[in-house]
Amino acid sequence: MHTTIPVSIQHDPVRLVLLDQTKLPEEELFLYLDSRDSIYEAIKKLRVRGAPAIGIAAAYGMYVCLARQAYPSLEAMAHDFTALKQYFASSRPTAVNLFWALERMQKRFDAELRKQEISRSLMLKALLDESNAIFAEDQAMSIAIGEHGLKLFDKSKHWGVMTHCNAGGLATSGYGTALAPLYLGHERGYRFSVYSNETRPLLQGSRLTAYELAKGGLDVTILCDNMASLVMKEGKINAVIVGADRIAANGDAANKIGTSGVAILANHYGIPFYVAAPSSTFDLATKQGDDIEIEQRDAEEVVNGFGKRTGPKDVRVYNPAFDVTDASLITAIITEKGIIEHPTTEKVAKHLLG
Amino acid sequence: MHTTIPVSIQHDPVRLVLLDQTKLPEEELFLYLDSRDSIYEAIKKLRVRGAPAIGIAAAYGMYVCLARQAYPSLEAMAHDFTALKQYFASSRPTAVNLFWALERMQKRFDAELRKQEISRSLMLKALLDESNAIFAEDQAMSIAIGEHGLKLFDKSKHWGVMTHCNAGGLATSGYGTALAPLYLGHERGYRFSVYSNETRPLLQGSRLTAYELAKGGLDVTILCDNMASLVMKEGKINAVIVGADRIAANGDAANKIGTSGVAILANHYGIPFYVAAPSSTFDLATKQGDDIEIEQRDAEEVVNGFGKRTGPKDVRVYNPAFDVTDASLITAIITEKGIIEHPTTEKVAKHLLG
Repeated sequence: MHTTIPVSIQHDPVRLVLLDQTKLPEEELFLYLDSRDSIYEAIKKLRVRGAPAIGIAAAYGMYVCLARQAYPSLEAMAHDFTALKQYFASSRPTAVNLFWALERMQKRFDAELRKQEISRSLMLKALLDESNAIFAEDQAMSIAIGEHGLKLFDKSKHWGVMTHCNAGGLATSGYGTALAPLYLGHERGYRFSVYSNETRPLLQGSRLTAYELAKGGLDVTILCDNMASLVMKEGKINAVIVGADRIAANGDAANKIGTSGVAILANHYGIPFYVAAPSSTFDLATKQGDDIEIEQRDAEEVVNGFGKRTGPKDVRVYNPAFDVTDASLITAIITEKGIIEHPTTEKVAKHLLG
Repeated sequence: MHTTIPVSIQHDPVRLVLLDQTKLPEEELFLYLDSRDSIYEAIKKLRVRGAPAIGIAAAYGMYVCLARQAYPSLEAMAHDFTALKQYFASSRPTAVNLFWALERMQKRFDAELRKQEISRSLMLKALLDESNAIFAEDQAMSIAIGEHGLKLFDKSKHWGVMTHCNAGGLATSGYGTALAPLYLGHERGYRFSVYSNETRPLLQGSRLTAYELAKGGLDVTILCDNMASLVMKEGKINAVIVGADRIAANGDAANKIGTSGVAILANHYGIPFYVAAPSSTFDLATKQGDDIEIEQRDAEEVVNGFGKRTGPKDVRVYNPAFDVTDASLITAIITEKGIIEHPTTEKVAKHLLG
């Protein structure tokens, strides 16, 4: 990778290193974590965020905590493994990727235990290998999404690209999902001007996306969410690309609140709207977007988020965490496997099998 | 008026009384102003805002300042009138209504001067009459917009109504423009649940609109701007009603940034989109919306707006103050003269003549 983007997760031999995302963009604070409580707290308090990044942090976190303890036996280590896994799993009870990573570490642990030649040091080596594999697979996924996504852009043109929330390097181990084609293209001489919607209420677009794109040397402009219509009308936007939290079997995509509005505006102005996400984001048990329950969050995020009260105390606040974009509004879904144009249930099924 | 809404402008015999809008919603601070510098400062610093409210404040401000001074002669008063008018006009150089109110006071002053029987006390009485007339006409305009607008609602139904920014009582002397039908209907037993978009970057929707609607006893919910699509999709919105800063001859309407996006979403979901504004908002010299220049505002409003930095320091910010909604997206424009359905150049011309 040649573009310098902020590394949100690193690992030195005995510590988990995280860039504290709650402090961005004002402060670039790296946390060097080597205790179970500090790692738990970092996940719980969103110091590390983004589905892939959380999973990777939990995997390395398991390794680091186990490596620092002098267990009298493998049995003692196994006992603590289970306790630690349950502890980390309780840090963010809705983070699917967290459970997935912890389960994967458990499977490796169990498989190693069954081996004839096993010792505490061999076990630790295996757990580090597994953590590294999760990290490397995530990086490869990012690059593959970037490669496929880049086919949708033309090197001879200057592209105005809008994005929403943060589906970038900070949310993953590498180039991110929605931002991967932009980083990769930037390295190869493609020309992008990125417009990052600030993404109320938590402002991931201005705090995180604008920060990492600028660090990566890309041209980026921050917008309030309600400015999307005007910049599209002014002809500044040639494509929209966003991430996804969950994609239904028919291609309806749940993502950060506001995404569906951007998709409707893009359609109104005739601008292609792309969703970039790993194929693991598809949830085939969910037939369509209407089946996805919308998480409601605390009112204070909206009316007391900037360090100052911005709404009357006694007034109701609506604070849904995400919305669902109809498949009919999506020009293409980009995964590490390729591109699904104008997604339908049939095309999604075929893509995931292929 | 039976609904208790916050009075943004009052006048006691010797002082201009303003509710300081920069302190809302945390503090209800009334300013009692009787000096030219304090009145100038209140207009300049947006302690009073909204086109009609600014005009009324300037008119009363002229009267108050002149009434408190012991002029040796009418000539001395006339001399000071001119100086004061220029001073107030420089407080907000783009506020059309400010100049309009000051000119109207000037015309009355000049007319009185030409009378045979004129004295300083008669002149002051005339200026107070003129200020009161401006105030009363504005109140009548609000009520007339409310009456016409209310025809678009049905008393037998419960209405979910979205609004954007503040086109309410705080911007005028009375019930406002976009909010007038809601206040009037509320008095008469119509049932409204109002959804107020917070309206980044300055949050007039959460700071002002939610505040005054709640004070008026209406059911109101604050939303981030990017939640509009979801609440519309969920069926919570039956109509959108907003104000306007300037309306072109063909019905294209300039209003606070984000309005055009809300209009596109409303059209997508089949929800009527109404613009309510006094007929003086039409600018027939402007043929269409594309001819309106968009004011750009300071980046700090977006990334450093509420006591906390929310974007990287070195990143570009786009901060247009308003956008233009195409007439084709407007279901009807409501003025004090009546309703223009699906506005066109012909219908607008006919409406303004009628």
